[in-house]
Amino acid sequence: MPTDPKYLRDFACFQNLTEDQMAAVARLATAVCYPPHHILFREGEPGERLFFMLKGEVEVLYQIGAADQERVDIVAGEEIVGCSALIKPYVYTATERSLTEIEVLEINAGELRQLMEEDYALGYTIQQQALSFLMDRIIDLRLAR
Amino acid sequence: MPTDPKYLRDFACFQNLTEDQMAAVARLATAVCYPPHHILFREGEPGERLFFMLKGEVEVLYQIGAADQERVDIVAGEEIVGCSALIKPYVYTATERSLTEIEVLEINAGELRQLMEEDYALGYTIQQQALSFLMDRIIDLRLAR
Repeated sequence: MPTDPKYLRDFACFQNLTEDQMAAVARLATAVCYPPHHILFREGEPGERLFFMLKGEVEVLYQIGAADQERVDIVAGEEIVGCSALIKPYVYTATERSLTEIEVLEINAGELRQLMEEDYALGYTIQQQALSFLMDRIIDLRLAR
Repeated sequence: MPTDPKYLRDFACFQNLTEDQMAAVARLATAVCYPPHHILFREGEPGERLFFMLKGEVEVLYQIGAADQERVDIVAGEEIVGCSALIKPYVYTATERSLTEIEVLEINAGELRQLMEEDYALGYTIQQQALSFLMDRIIDLRLAR
């Protein structure tokens, strides 16, 4: 279900897009609220959806050896969840599940990747944002060790 | 000092570039070996250089509070060192220092950013690689907690 492009303006990561680019992304996006304990995706599944989270908290779970899934991180607030859907080989590297109610913009990742490769300027801008989120996450993880 | 474009072929992250793109990047690059204990850059400095490391180990140091700099990570092997030189506001987020002799391709980051914005297809390809390196680093850090 396409989203009103105006909704994208709430996200810092879309603010450098042109009107046309924002409209193109909005066509692939659905604004959704999920309750707590909703599994967004599972480790090893194909990266079919990307979640631009506006509000809430998501836990990151890994299968480590034969043990049960273990929580290795929590992401909160304005974040890109499921970044591995943008990175080859486009397979989720973790299971992610909402801890609170979350407000997300859910985007068809395959169609977004196609759009990013048809319009490299758009692709470049979105990648810049993803890089910035990942770098912040690295800093947080390093400081938390 | 420009590098022979052939040298770039040793790096997985340049293998999707065209001949022309590889030649353009090679013009900004210098192949260098540094001895152990060489400081590549310091936290808070402008991100002027990017290092595509081929061999060796680099330690990542943070200033945490008023304490001395503390090692928070080690990166080794084929890696992009100094990724924050590609991410706004282009300021190094850590100090990085060689632990062993290292073999790097040193690239003028300002000129590379300009090239990436003039040729978004090139920018897209390099950012894909940077995303991939950062994602691997996140997985390692999460598993090491």
